[in-house]
Amino acid sequence: MHPYTIIQVSDSSDFSIYNLPYGVYSERGGERHICTALGDYVVDILALDALGKLAGTGIDGLQNSLISPTLNDFIALGPAAWAALRLRLIAILSNPANENAAWHNEVLRPMLGCEMHLPVKIPNYTDFYSSEYHATNVGAMFRPDNPLMPNWKHLPVAYHGRASSIVVSGHGVHRPSGQTLAAGEEKPSFGPSKMLDYELETAFIVGVPNAIGSPVAVDDAENHIFGMVLLNDWSARDIQAWEYQPLGPFLAKNFCSTISPWVVTMEALMPYRQPMPTHEPALLPYLQGGAHHHQYDICLEVDIEAVDGSDTTVCQTNQKYLYWTMAQQLAHHTATGCNMEVGDLLGSGTISGPTPDSLGCLLETTKRGKNPVMLSNGETRGFLQKGDTVVMRGYAERGGKRVGFGECRGTITG
Amino acid sequence: MHPYTIIQVSDSSDFSIYNLPYGVYSERGGERHICTALGDYVVDILALDALGKLAGTGIDGLQNSLISPTLNDFIALGPAAWAALRLRLIAILSNPANENAAWHNEVLRPMLGCEMHLPVKIPNYTDFYSSEYHATNVGAMFRPDNPLMPNWKHLPVAYHGRASSIVVSGHGVHRPSGQTLAAGEEKPSFGPSKMLDYELETAFIVGVPNAIGSPVAVDDAENHIFGMVLLNDWSARDIQAWEYQPLGPFLAKNFCSTISPWVVTMEALMPYRQPMPTHEPALLPYLQGGAHHHQYDICLEVDIEAVDGSDTTVCQTNQKYLYWTMAQQLAHHTATGCNMEVGDLLGSGTISGPTPDSLGCLLETTKRGKNPVMLSNGETRGFLQKGDTVVMRGYAERGGKRVGFGECRGTITG
Repeated sequence: MHPYTIIQVSDSSDFSIYNLPYGVYSERGGERHICTALGDYVVDILALDALGKLAGTGIDGLQNSLISPTLNDFIALGPAAWAALRLRLIAILSNPANENAAWHNEVLRPMLGCEMHLPVKIPNYTDFYSSEYHATNVGAMFRPDNPLMPNWKHLPVAYHGRASSIVVSGHGVHRPSGQTLAAGEEKPSFGPSKMLDYELETAFIVGVPNAIGSPVAVDDAENHIFGMVLLNDWSARDIQAWEYQPLGPFLAKNFCSTISPWVVTMEALMPYRQPMPTHEPALLPYLQGGAHHHQYDICLEVDIEAVDGSDTTVCQTNQKYLYWTMAQQLAHHTATGCNMEVGDLLGSGTISGPTPDSLGCLLETTKRGKNPVMLSNGETRGFLQKGDTVVMRGYAERGGKRVGFGECRGTITG
Repeated sequence: MHPYTIIQVSDSSDFSIYNLPYGVYSERGGERHICTALGDYVVDILALDALGKLAGTGIDGLQNSLISPTLNDFIALGPAAWAALRLRLIAILSNPANENAAWHNEVLRPMLGCEMHLPVKIPNYTDFYSSEYHATNVGAMFRPDNPLMPNWKHLPVAYHGRASSIVVSGHGVHRPSGQTLAAGEEKPSFGPSKMLDYELETAFIVGVPNAIGSPVAVDDAENHIFGMVLLNDWSARDIQAWEYQPLGPFLAKNFCSTISPWVVTMEALMPYRQPMPTHEPALLPYLQGGAHHHQYDICLEVDIEAVDGSDTTVCQTNQKYLYWTMAQQLAHHTATGCNMEVGDLLGSGTISGPTPDSLGCLLETTKRGKNPVMLSNGETRGFLQKGDTVVMRGYAERGGKRVGFGECRGTITG
């Protein structure tokens, strides 16, 4: 039995009263407002404030933080503010006295009519490589006898990504051009990528910054995280293969990355915590921590929608398969004294599971295109074609309580 | 014979009337103002505007752009605005009628009493690897028979760096801790880096953005560049060696990078252009261009100042030794449709020349610490010690006209 909510919410909705993610929306070209979601409605937080419904929360600076087209100012208010606003939103949205309140029209907007925007201005983007299944599968293509590098189980490998080209779900994805070296050729050629791929990832958003020179301890790291999104780190595999030695992926990854519009808070995800995975060999102390960091049980799925509207699920996996926790990623990233800024995005890396239907990118699923996947309309895909839409979904569910991310969607425009 | 200037400028000054770089300064904890430099003085551009001296330049939005603690808003006005303000500054500063003007005290500040700040809010930072001498020397340490990777002469190799930890000259540099694998060991250990290094680089600042999906052509690329700075891309070589496979440098480079406070404009550097270097094998057309991109003749120097005040020049080299031009770097970076933002910083990579005294980092100069450099006080350095100050300087000079960058300085605090 769920608590009362002022509008009806289906049991299968990602946006239950237990969730209350944050986002930024507009209607019909209007202003961008900070919002949350309940069932099929966007809940306009700025409108709630204008009605006086957020008075007396005791959050210093809340009003000013809401007059912004991104969440950064609100996030910068810190964990006590996040908790206080969440409590107030729950109180408003689950109070039977508000059932037919006159303000519904000002505050509740049908989600179908809303345009969602990038929720956060992202100052820095880092991408990890934290799935052992993914790293092993990809490594085996290059080094069959020794797929994992010697460092892989000692530290969460990562690289800096490109923040400027991160777009929100629904934004078109152009096919990048670049240099590639065809098999058997000695000289590269230039042209549109022929091996365009998705990468299923989650990512977390830094909520509490640290000063340059001041690392974040692994046991404290979860306190620095505001929330999570879905991330599709589009990749051009042919460009990557030719360019990446010796400094890592560059153009193959910088042309576009898509995130879901709703930031699911760590408070909402708390019931879906799992113990940290076992690490063998044992970790250095700065990555060990005690009981204060966790893995999360989040179901993840990738669908390909073809131009004809047919829909094929090509991957089902779970966040819990990751070898490294978000806390370990953040502790490692800051171990040198690297400073995090509010809104920084840290991606998990492609999330693959142990089975053939749980691989998070086509490079793995099709073995570099050699074993194409069959779509429900009878077509096959080694890599993505013009018009293909990739849709990622994610949700956590226990005891009938569901907290989901909605969709992370992008269509290949060329 | 130089033109008249309203204050005397020594022939050896980096800040001649031909230069007029842009920066951001404050005095005694006061507000940050946008400024230029002439001889030993900071010239407060906001103060000039308040006096009405910038009226009638025809630059839309100039006044608003100057009320900012960084140059980004001014840079975003575009090349016509940059040219118009430069002309006006020259007119004011070389007009004999202004010799003893009453406003000198409001506008001219002795440089010694000014604190300089990060001139630009840097949204994205990319570091190239464009010196053939450097890539060959470093590559030979790992692969004596085949120092350059097969892709190196076909494309300007680069990786995404960390923008948040870029600081301005004078900021202290902490020694990073991290994982390293000692020789002969099987397991890594964690502790302060024992191989802390500088990297002598220049970097350019993007002035004209491009939309996602819209590459910048190599012949048009110089029009997108606002100016240049000196860059010290501090590196922890022991952390780098253990972490960098397979995704490139990460923690070894993200703890701190230092830039010079003055942005020297491409207009000021125009007289020091050189023809593009010869590329063999021939380049793909998108990197060739015609006569519209260039190398630059900029003398560069690195000094180590020890705690006792002694000063040793450990490198003298030149920007012109780079194999790739800035235009090629920008065209390559955007070839996939990656979007540049105003203020983005693109570093050259370590600049080394052909001789033993022209190597841009200690890794090369000391052959990974094996052949330490002798300092003028009799001490030696394999890598940097606590208290060492690294000072980089750069200037271009032809026909007695000198345009310099000032200093890029950092002291190792631990």
